[in-house]
Amino acid sequence: LLPLSLGLFQGALLLFFALFVTYDKPSVREEDANLVASQLYGIFPFFQDIQVMLVVGLGLLLTFLPRYGLSALTHNFLLFNFSTQWALVLQGLLHHFQHGQVHLDLHNLLTAEFAAVTVLISVGAVLGRTSPCQLFLVAACEVPVYLTSEWVIVTRLGVLDVGGTITIHVFSCYFGLAVSKALFGAAQRPVHPKETPTPRSDLQSLVGMLILWVFWPSFVAVLCQPGDAQHRAILNTLLAMSASAVTTVVASSLLERDGKLSPGHLQNGSLAGGVAIGVVADMAMPPVAALALGSLSAVACVLGFRFLTPLLARKLALQDQCGIHNLHGLPGILGAAASTVAILVASEDASGSHFSQVSPVGGNGSEVAGEPWGARGAGRQALCQAAGLAVAVGGSLLAGLLTGATLRLPCLAQPPERLGFNDSLYFKIQDQAESLGPRGTTREGALALKERV
Amino acid sequence: LLPLSLGLFQGALLLFFALFVTYDKPSVREEDANLVASQLYGIFPFFQDIQVMLVVGLGLLLTFLPRYGLSALTHNFLLFNFSTQWALVLQGLLHHFQHGQVHLDLHNLLTAEFAAVTVLISVGAVLGRTSPCQLFLVAACEVPVYLTSEWVIVTRLGVLDVGGTITIHVFSCYFGLAVSKALFGAAQRPVHPKETPTPRSDLQSLVGMLILWVFWPSFVAVLCQPGDAQHRAILNTLLAMSASAVTTVVASSLLERDGKLSPGHLQNGSLAGGVAIGVVADMAMPPVAALALGSLSAVACVLGFRFLTPLLARKLALQDQCGIHNLHGLPGILGAAASTVAILVASEDASGSHFSQVSPVGGNGSEVAGEPWGARGAGRQALCQAAGLAVAVGGSLLAGLLTGATLRLPCLAQPPERLGFNDSLYFKIQDQAESLGPRGTTREGALALKERV
Amino acid sequence: LLPLSLGLFQGALLLFFALFVTYDKPSVREEDANLVASQLYGIFPFFQDIQVMLVVGLGLLLTFLPRYGLSALTHNFLLFNFSTQWALVLQGLLHHFQHGQVHLDLHNLLTAEFAAVTVLISVGAVLGRTSPCQLFLVAACEVPVYLTSEWVIVTRLGVLDVGGTITIHVFSCYFGLAVSKALFGAAQRPVHPKETPTPRSDLQSLVGMLILWVFWPSFVAVLCQPGDAQHRAILNTLLAMSASAVTTVVASSLLERDGKLSPGHLQNGSLAGGVAIGVVADMAMPPVAALALGSLSAVACVLGFRFLTPLLARKLALQDQCGIHNLHGLPGILGAAASTVAILVASEDASGSHFSQVSPVGGNGSEVAGEPWGARGAGRQALCQAAGLAVAVGGSLLAGLLTGATLRLPCLAQPPERLGFNDSLYFKIQDQAESLGPRGTTREGALALKERV
Repeated sequence: LLPLSLGLFQGALLLFFALFVTYDKPSVREEDANLVASQLYGIFPFFQDIQVMLVVGLGLLLTFLPRYGLSALTHNFLLFNFSTQWALVLQGLLHHFQHGQVHLDLHNLLTAEFAAVTVLISVGAVLGRTSPCQLFLVAACEVPVYLTSEWVIVTRLGVLDVGGTITIHVFSCYFGLAVSKALFGAAQRPVHPKETPTPRSDLQSLVGMLILWVFWPSFVAVLCQPGDAQHRAILNTLLAMSASAVTTVVASSLLERDGKLSPGHLQNGSLAGGVAIGVVADMAMPPVAALALGSLSAVACVLGFRFLTPLLARKLALQDQCGIHNLHGLPGILGAAASTVAILVASEDASGSHFSQVSPVGGNGSEVAGEPWGARGAGRQALCQAAGLAVAVGGSLLAGLLTGATLRLPCLAQPPERLGFNDSLYFKIQDQAESLGPRGTTREGALALKERV
Repeated sequence: LLPLSLGLFQGALLLFFALFVTYDKPSVREEDANLVASQLYGIFPFFQDIQVMLVVGLGLLLTFLPRYGLSALTHNFLLFNFSTQWALVLQGLLHHFQHGQVHLDLHNLLTAEFAAVTVLISVGAVLGRTSPCQLFLVAACEVPVYLTSEWVIVTRLGVLDVGGTITIHVFSCYFGLAVSKALFGAAQRPVHPKETPTPRSDLQSLVGMLILWVFWPSFVAVLCQPGDAQHRAILNTLLAMSASAVTTVVASSLLERDGKLSPGHLQNGSLAGGVAIGVVADMAMPPVAALALGSLSAVACVLGFRFLTPLLARKLALQDQCGIHNLHGLPGILGAAASTVAILVASEDASGSHFSQVSPVGGNGSEVAGEPWGARGAGRQALCQAAGLAVAVGGSLLAGLLTGATLRLPCLAQPPERLGFNDSLYFKIQDQAESLGPRGTTREGALALKERV
Repeated sequence: LLPLSLGLFQGALLLFFALFVTYDKPSVREEDANLVASQLYGIFPFFQDIQVMLVVGLGLLLTFLPRYGLSALTHNFLLFNFSTQWALVLQGLLHHFQHGQVHLDLHNLLTAEFAAVTVLISVGAVLGRTSPCQLFLVAACEVPVYLTSEWVIVTRLGVLDVGGTITIHVFSCYFGLAVSKALFGAAQRPVHPKETPTPRSDLQSLVGMLILWVFWPSFVAVLCQPGDAQHRAILNTLLAMSASAVTTVVASSLLERDGKLSPGHLQNGSLAGGVAIGVVADMAMPPVAALALGSLSAVACVLGFRFLTPLLARKLALQDQCGIHNLHGLPGILGAAASTVAILVASEDASGSHFSQVSPVGGNGSEVAGEPWGARGAGRQALCQAAGLAVAVGGSLLAGLLTGATLRLPCLAQPPERLGFNDSLYFKIQDQAESLGPRGTTREGALALKERV
């Protein structure tokens, strides 16, 4: 089923591109060509950083399941590509169709990749327990919902969210949780033996986290106004992530009785600051705010892993394999709250005299720079941020539940529980441990093991 | 033998640099200094991306042999360095000698690294079955042949090949195959037990593929004219590689009876689009052509692994350890064919009136921009592309056969078959599995294994 | 103890930032904004490269201890963050306090990260045998000493050291050795069974080395004057590291009786050229000097591993777990010596007539460009370089001994020898080999192993 559908999709993609998509006309004048070159040099390093994050960093982060590394890495890669293509088609049809030909450039591709990010985050909730068919169906459903939601939040409501905290992280988190709930229902289940990370798989996952950690500033700042706003967004992200990393260790060690560190806390908590900072990164706020937000998000993330995830599993039978609620949900909500505060404080700071005449987005920044707060009022903008959060949570939960219900279709070949978390279901590999378990003697087993280590 | 020869080579390198190589004079005027700075910022990020690809990405891609990872990574690294140095020397002697002093800059280094790429690709055909001595001899022979072939193809024939599809990929593929044929002769051989990848080595290799995949656009676009042509080359490469990735899954799943994915197909097929697109990346063609070429190359690559490689092994006793024919040969030929089509179509599109007055290289691009098709005709350029392909294939086969025959010299210490694919032959490591096999009890074996896992 | 202290530190950091740190005012005029943007595009790719080196590359390089990978990677990451924050605080208090508000920008962060690098290098000497408490105490002590030493060497003595060879590498090496000596005293100890690298851990470490190798030019060149000096610094670093890589193989193979390569030599020797070149990278010297310096450093590094480290361990009971003396100490001293030679030779070359009127830093380079050698004389500058080296060695040894003595405090929870090199001491992981060793049968052991491989 899957190869055929994907093949058909590739055909449709070719048709769509043949009919509607073209490149910009090459510049004739030399100044224009120089402008194109300097714009390219401005965006391309950011773009490459983001590709490394999504393809290598996020892929490795998901390899913490010791027998499911190949699948995690591969599914992440394929969903990234499929979702980007699908978002390009939908963006082309929806947004650009009205203007005739679609002109493809690096910026289009980037926004399509942002749509793909939501899919990559959401499927973390059901990692290891779904078939590729189901994963691609999630992608097919989530991308259009994301594009709609992003249009409502950013274009209609005018929410400021340069790093995608609300539009990407919060949205994809609740979408994924809703899919998980609708798919697995109320069944409690025992811990699968292959679910426990080994030191080796934890190490791989940690390397993935470090790659994400290093390149996160590029993700937050790529769409900022070049100049001061972008510089500030990079610095804020660096500060928030640095505070997250150290605070995670404090929180994780204090919560465990023997003071040992949990690799899972570290893999997620260190990134929490980056999730939260996205929505305020280019706003006019002092550096200490970025540090504080980073620390708070890390605490929220670690507390989430320690108390909220088990609670949700017990009370709501909600299964969240990667803990996306702790990494994307809680810090995302914190960030949204921080953005309302930042807007209100910035307007008070500025309104020494009468009205607030200054945008919270400092300098020559952002889409609202020409529309200062005096026109709509900081209070209204703060309300908009809250409304955007509500749309992201509400829309994603609804759409996620519907998607999850669809995934129960028998033709999608969901693997039985006992075969979950297992690469050999989807890859032609010699799964020696299994093949040799029943029939091999211990001696043979040890010898075979030596060969494969 | 090897350390002495390498040591002598380092001495000769020092001598050559002392006599002939210098840096550019520093700029005196401020405008010149600013120009140098902005040129550096234009090329350096591309350069770093390419270094990551060749040293980290390609090295990891080759670690799919479970007991040969250290050797694969190290030999790749050392051959990269030696071949670059050797190419610098030859380039200096051949191309620049006529102008006196050689002025070293980042651009020289880059073209020398491209010469090294051919070596890294070619040795994939004999991975795991040759001694370091033999590998360095391959490098010593291949670099001068490549430089000659590249000079004939690009400078003499005027072939357009911005991404090195013909000059690098096709050339190195047939060189490597010819070496393998001449070295191993007609002997069939059974599959070595250490040749089968494990899930872990497949995962490592997959990470290498992802790193190559992410940075490939930099490799294709680094030598493009800055501005529109470079932007288009990046976009075309991104599209081709995205189509390759998805199409590989379709093709691989359809070809296997149980619908499982082969890691080997994925590791190679996803990159096939990047190989093929190089020769047309900066030409004036619609985006759909890049997608189509990417899909076709992936199909060709997977079909090659499934049918052609076994066929060649059976009929010609041709051994191709990494499947370089499927990743570099077939997609490279496809790309060359595509370039003739692109040139002919572009000239027809443009010649609405009488003659084709437009170059297929759009805008302010490429070495032939000042020489429009009217002068030599699109047909002639298309013939040139075909002639370039013929030179690359013919020259590399001939030189490869000679090189392979030389490798049979007994002093080069080719390892016996049964000791192939084994790190412990070249590294001071405690190869516990072997040391403990004969004398250890199972109990001891299991304990030792625990220690080393 | 550790979580509480770290928590307190985070609080103090927040307080400091709240009181003293702010961002630059956003630019009002468009030209200023464009300048900010182009400066950002100039430095940001270098900055990201350096972050990858320190967080991912150096972290992986340290994972050569097979059972200590998680700890090595995590401690490296946390020390990096803590030390950067601590350096930001101290820099803010010491250097900027006199000017009122501290204006945070990417350049401040970068110099703070350079302070963190010294910590990451120093702790290599005691890797695996100290508690996290002790490591953080090392960081707390080393950062202020480094900032003082760097101020004396660069600001007071006017030492030229663009790549931090003397100020960072030599300083941190002898600091780390002194800590090790003062902490472990005169006790000889047997080799711990977990100290021997496995092929897998060697491979991981090798990947870390390759990442460091690729991005090293960015580390050396980031603080160079943009333009020719930066271009030359990049080229010199590339040449030195290329020569190092090849020479390491020559030296390592010649020193071993069976001609096999030692992974440890390769992991360190290939980087030695980068350490040595830092101090001369932007000076006016011919390319051959960079090659020669790279080769010499690699030879020194390999000889150090083969003869000096065992000698120091035997005679002085000096324990140097990662061999930092061979990678940072010896090549650093070589580089410092090379810088005096380069300065003297450059002044002689230039003084055809009477006085030396030219700076060894070519073109529009460096902090002393406005102050040509005529003023102070090349001889005096050469003496300054030597004096800087003496300050770095002397200051670090003294401060390191004091720090090491402090580490013996019982409250710092140094692990007993037999529990060293072990992740399970600090991480919540299921250390199966240990848990199953005493009680499991061989059969159970083999099965459990299968699960975790």
